[in-house]
Formats: sequence, C-alpha cells, structure tokens
Amino acid sequence: MIFINFKAYKEGFGKNALELAKIAEEVAERSGVYIAVAVNHLDLPVIAKSVRIDVFAQHIDAVEFGSYTGAVNAEMIKEYGAKGSLINHSERRLKLADIDFCVSKLKKLGMISIVCTNNVATTAAVSALKPDFVAVEPPELIGSGIAVSKAEPEVVERAVASAKKICKEVKVLCGAGITKREDYVRALELGADGVLLASGVVKAKDQKKALEELVGLS
Amino acid sequence: MIFINFKAYKEGFGKNALELAKIAEEVAERSGVYIAVAVNHLDLPVIAKSVRIDVFAQHIDAVEFGSYTGAVNAEMIKEYGAKGSLINHSERRLKLADIDFCVSKLKKLGMISIVCTNNVATTAAVSALKPDFVAVEPPELIGSGIAVSKAEPEVVERAVASAKKICKEVKVLCGAGITKREDYVRALELGADGVLLASGVVKAKDQKKALEELVGLS
Amino acid sequence: MIFINFKAYKEGFGKNALELAKIAEEVAERSGVYIAVAVNHLDLPVIAKSVRIDVFAQHIDAVEFGSYTGAVNAEMIKEYGAKGSLINHSERRLKLADIDFCVSKLKKLGMISIVCTNNVATTAAVSALKPDFVAVEPPELIGSGIAVSKAEPEVVERAVASAKKICKEVKVLCGAGITKREDYVRALELGADGVLLASGVVKAKDQKKALEELVGLS
Amino acid sequence: MIFINFKAYKEGFGKNALELAKIAEEVAERSGVYIAVAVNHLDLPVIAKSVRIDVFAQHIDAVEFGSYTGAVNAEMIKEYGAKGSLINHSERRLKLADIDFCVSKLKKLGMISIVCTNNVATTAAVSALKPDFVAVEPPELIGSGIAVSKAEPEVVERAVASAKKICKEVKVLCGAGITKREDYVRALELGADGVLLASGVVKAKDQKKALEELVGLS
Repeated sequence: MIFINFKAYKEGFGKNALELAKIAEEVAERSGVYIAVAVNHLDLPVIAKSVRIDVFAQHIDAVEFGSYTGAVNAEMIKEYGAKGSLINHSERRLKLADIDFCVSKLKKLGMISIVCTNNVATTAAVSALKPDFVAVEPPELIGSGIAVSKAEPEVVERAVASAKKICKEVKVLCGAGITKREDYVRALELGADGVLLASGVVKAKDQKKALEELVGLS
Repeated sequence: MIFINFKAYKEGFGKNALELAKIAEEVAERSGVYIAVAVNHLDLPVIAKSVRIDVFAQHIDAVEFGSYTGAVNAEMIKEYGAKGSLINHSERRLKLADIDFCVSKLKKLGMISIVCTNNVATTAAVSALKPDFVAVEPPELIGSGIAVSKAEPEVVERAVASAKKICKEVKVLCGAGITKREDYVRALELGADGVLLASGVVKAKDQKKALEELVGLS
Repeated sequence: MIFINFKAYKEGFGKNALELAKIAEEVAERSGVYIAVAVNHLDLPVIAKSVRIDVFAQHIDAVEFGSYTGAVNAEMIKEYGAKGSLINHSERRLKLADIDFCVSKLKKLGMISIVCTNNVATTAAVSALKPDFVAVEPPELIGSGIAVSKAEPEVVERAVASAKKICKEVKVLCGAGITKREDYVRALELGADGVLLASGVVKAKDQKKALEELVGLS
Repeated sequence: MIFINFKAYKEGFGKNALELAKIAEEVAERSGVYIAVAVNHLDLPVIAKSVRIDVFAQHIDAVEFGSYTGAVNAEMIKEYGAKGSLINHSERRLKLADIDFCVSKLKKLGMISIVCTNNVATTAAVSALKPDFVAVEPPELIGSGIAVSKAEPEVVERAVASAKKICKEVKVLCGAGITKREDYVRALELGADGVLLASGVVKAKDQKKALEELVGLS
C-alpha cells in the first residue's frame, strides 16, 4: 500500500494535483498495487470525482458543524468524496484529545483514519485509539531522502510490534525519506503494511517514472 | 457592504452553501448592495465558479508553497477564484506575525484582506498593517443576537476613528449580533463601511427573506 | 492518594499557596493519607523548600535547555525541588509528541509524571507512554461540583481497566467535580489509585476543614 | 538601555541566573548604563529579591486568576517583584488579542511591557497598543551573531520611525545578533532607545567581560 501526501507542494496543487492523481490511478491499475493520495482541501472535490483510487484529506479539524470559522471537519470531506484523512502529520500536530475526536468521528462515519506519529512510543499510544492506520515518521528523516526503513529499521520493526500488541487490527505505515523501490520493499519486510511518502514522488523530476519505479513497473 | 461568513454551519456548507451564495447574488443584483460571501475551503472552488459576487475564504495559513501538510495559502485560494480571505476571525485567531504575513501576501497577489479584531485597540493595531478591511467584533456579542451597533455603538465609532487615523484608506466593518436592517443602518451611521455577519442570515429560518430584509427589499 | 491542583486560583497563589501547602502537609501527616500539591511555577521554589509533602509543577514545556524564551522544562523544576509535573491538563492540552517528550524526560530524571486525559480512549493511549500516573477527567465535569465517580462511574472503571491492560504499572487517578469524602471513597472503590482535585479544596470557604473531611478526619 | 533575555539557557538558569543578574547589577551601577534582566519564572522570585536592577519575566499568559492550570499572569509576576514582562518573543509568539490583553493588564498594574516584533509592519501595529517598549528582532538574525544594527540598519530606522509616528511615547529596542559595543552604539545612532540581547552575553565565555565591553567599561 502506498499513500502519497501531496502536502502544499506547488507540484501537488491545482492542475498539477489532478494530473498526479491521474498518474497514481493509472499506475495503481496497471500494477495492481494499492495507491491512494492525500490532497489539499481545495483540490479534494474535483480530484475525488475524477479518479477511481482513494482520495484522502491531509487534515481535519476536531469540531462538529457550527461556529467554527475556517474549519473543515470529517463530515465535510465525506460529503465531497474523501475516503478518510491523515491526522496529526508532523507538519500539523494535534492535541491528543483532538486526535481521539477525529479518529472516533471518522470511524462513526465509516471513513478511514491514518494517524501520523513520530516514534515507537507515540505509535503505541495512537494504536490504543484504534485508528485504521498509524504512520510512523521520524521527523528528522522527513524530506531527507534517507529512508526510515534503511536508516532506522528497528524503529519500523518496533513500531509494528508495539502497535499490533495494543490493537492487532491496526495497520502500520512507515514514512520519511522513502523514494526508492528498495526502501519500500524493505519497509514491507520489516512488517509495515505500506508506506506514506511525499517529496519522493511529488517533487520527482518525472513523477510517473518515480511511481512506476516504486511499484516495480520499470 | 455586507459580508456573510458561512462559518462551519451545516446551513452554510455543501449544497446549502451554493444555494445561499446564489441567494446572496440575486439579492445583491436586485438591491444594488455589495454582498460577498466567505465560504468553506471545500466549497470555494464550485461557488467561485458559480456566482458573480465576490467569494472569500474564511482563513488562510501563513505559509508559502512547500512542506506544509494540510495548509491552504493565499496563492491557492486565488487559483480557485477567491477574491480574498478573512484573517484572524475570533474562532481562528492568529499570531500577529502571521496576520502580517497574510495581509502582505494577499496584497502582493492583488487580493483583498479582511482582518477581524476584538476591540478598538486591536483594530488600531491591525490598521497599521494596511489591510483592505478591518472587521471589529466584540467576541462576547458574536452569535448573541445583540447587535454591536446597538449595544456598543462607541466601540464601532472609536474603532472607525482609530483605524482611519492610522491608515485612512482602510475600510472598517463591524460585526457580532447583527441580524436586522436597523442594526445594519445604525452601523453605517456610526461610520462603518459595512458589516460582517453570519448566523443572522446563515441560520435564519428563511435565509432569502432575512437578507432581503437586511438590504431593505422587503 | 490525593493530588491538589492549585491552578491559577488566587486562593492557591502566593502566600495563600504556601499556607494551603502547609495545611495539606499537616493533614497528610495527621491522617497518614498521601497528599501532594501541584503549584504555580512562581510559587514552586519556596513551597518545595517549606513542606515535606511532594510538590509538583502544573505544566512543563517539551524542550531542552536552549533558546526557548519563557519555557520551563523538567530539569528546571527538578532543580527547584519538584517531585514531578502534571502534563496535558485540560486547561493546558499538549500535542501527543510533546506529552511523550515530557513523560520520557521526567522518567529519565527520576521524576514523576501525571498525565491528564479526557476519556477512556485517551487514558488507554497515554498508558502506552508508561507515565507514572494517568488522571482521567471528563472536561464537562471539571469545576462542576458533580463528581465523576458519582456521575460517570463507568468512565472511572473503564479507564482503570484499559490503562492497566496496556501498562499494569500505571496508576490511575480520577478527577473532575470531586469535593466530598464519599466521592473520593467511591473513586477508590471503582479502582482508582487516588484523586486529582482543585476547586473542591482550593476554593473551599474553609480549606483545612474541606481537606480534613476528605481524608476522614472530621 | 540594555535588556538581557536569559531565555532557557543553562547558563541563564538557577544559580547561573542569579550570578549573571548580580554581574548585570554590578556593571550597571559601575557604568551608569540601565541594564535589566528577563529571567525564568522559577528564578524570578529569588532574583527579584536579590538585585537592585529591574527584573522582568520572559512571558506572561493572557489570563486573569482562575481555572488556568499552568498559567502565570501579570498579577503573579508583580507579586514576586517583577518590573514587567517580555511579550510575544519570537520563541513564544502570541495571538494579537492576547498581546493586547497583556499590554493593557501590565499598564493597569503599573508595570512595564516590552513587546517583541519581527519587522517594521508589526512594530507599527504593536505601537498602536501603546506598550512601553517595542523590541524589533528580525527572526533570521536571532542567535546569528550578525547584528541587526549592522546587517539591516534600515529595519531599525524604519521601525523607530513607524513606531514613534503611531505612538510617540513608545520606546524602541532592537535585537537579534547584537554582541559587540559597536553594534549597540550603532543601534542607538539609528534611533533605538536600547537593545534586547541574549546569547551575546548569556552564552559568552566570560559573561562579565562581555557585558563590560558592551557598556564601554573595558
């Protein structure tokens, strides 16, 4: 499983975002690998209508409908076709009570939660909230080009073990620095159910080639 | 001038938002009064394409393009047709340096900034940043149904005076509790250039009637 | 075990704080019940030197020594004699990664961590971080005078069960609305190791009497 | 005027803080230059009692007395002998409404407010709140060893001009990268009333010598 976080990259916004989502769809269908994309709130409506792969939000606010100027909640992204949302990305950390609120709300709505964490301990903690996915990403490796599965394999192994011990249904992703097929394969060998990546694909010179290489098509 | 903040109200989201924006457009064109709407990020793309009135975002993040998962910046809302954005709403307060960043960035992009403030002193402070609009809203009156122009007329008068003293081009809106025509007219008499309102229209039983009443069409 | 959070109450600050800490010490020694106090940063140095009961901080920042203007970290409160700190109180919620940082740092320094949570799920999550104590406090009951152990006994029972399942060494406190001995006793019967309270003692007309009543001395 | 921010530096905490405050006092009295120190909350009580120079807090929370676990407000630091507080340091940015709250509260208590800003525009904005001091510090130069008065003299000049235009009583400090006497003198020549510095003195190998050099004693 591959989740691509488009972040607020220019290469992952607007027309670029739609194109990249189409590429992801095409590569997913050709390779048989599950690929999903996490896109900007503004791009979400059009992308969710335009591709057959799962589309996620990058963040939701821990609120109901009401007097919350500027907020985007779980019900809202569902209305526009999102499958679920990233929660607590290292660039958008949340308070614990709000992570819990978002995971519960997504579950109630039949949606998928992917909670990002920074180490083994917080991966265990989040697993107790029973999200669908925990995505462990050592912050110091994000955007570094140094793959977590290579540089800190024990973090991946221990994160998987501690997550499953607390909640055996939770799936574990790993992220940070993953750009090459070998990093991805190594992550799966270490027990991860998939990877969460961003710059490795979104900022690649040739996005399609990068993604094809990742799934083993080239 | 009337700015309607749809907030995260169910009555101001999704299909409801598009309908309400159409109502606002129709009332604006029939009455000749300037009416603009501030909508949810997810609704913005479709509404901006569907109506001839100005469409604003309710919030933007103080960042450039880049590694900012979950962020929506000024360039992004421009791409999708927004005229500008509310900044620093009482339900989404920003740090001072970030207000400055957003005002500057919107100006650079030829867009309109509407910075919300909570009292006379912060209205003066924000005016020094030279935004297009300052919208003063005493927090205790927001959503109260008690109009600021009636309950605290001196706040409106002093906010206008102190804003114009610091930057004579800045336009001043007032908000909080405004629902009736007399409150709106009173605001203009007190020197405000317009009003920023939300629940008075968005949560009205009959939104169209509420807006017509406000502009003097009924 | 009774932990008294002095908050930023006037009755729990300055000379009042020192007096109240002395009362707590006297009642603790007379009753044999463990009583500790969580005090303001400014009061901490003098109180820690003046009483024989354990003195805690109400909050620490998740930073090391360095360029962090205004920050108070674990090493600092240790230097001044604190036994440990409350973390993530509902009035001072932290991001998950910061809770983890503070718990780890306190452990490393041989200090005690008491992490506040708002429900059963977050109690389980925090237990995975292996703090010394988790203190579950449903936010809607804080300061209400309605004891959590009476109004929501199942929250206490389930919090204890889920915490111990994940980390059997973790001790569980409950809080919110506890003012009377029967609430305290009930909390222990439900499996809690103790209570965290504030206004019930700090804002009592007669603080000493309130505390004596709580421990069964009157 | 020289304000020394001890930050959360190990060299500016605990016994080190008291020693450094004594050095500052000694140099101030010997040179006739006004020197004040901004110290950690835990250190404040003992330092304020031990030196004749002005002692400031590094931060205060925008709250009254009440249910605010972990908060330190203006009344509290006054009780322990502080002369005033830094507000909105770049390492502790506040929301605009909270800056206003703190400035007003300090004024009401007869205390001194020093509000930090990041550029000319925010210096002008803060001046409208009528604090005693605005301290402009371009964030990119903080801790850089490159003095703002040397690298960006126009920022200092324009900050002074725009501040005084809006509120002629406000005093302007400049900071960021100031370590040498020539930087300090240059700041005064550019119109600043003084400087706010930190690492240049606090982390100097010989703190006393650094401070003496700064005021022209060596």
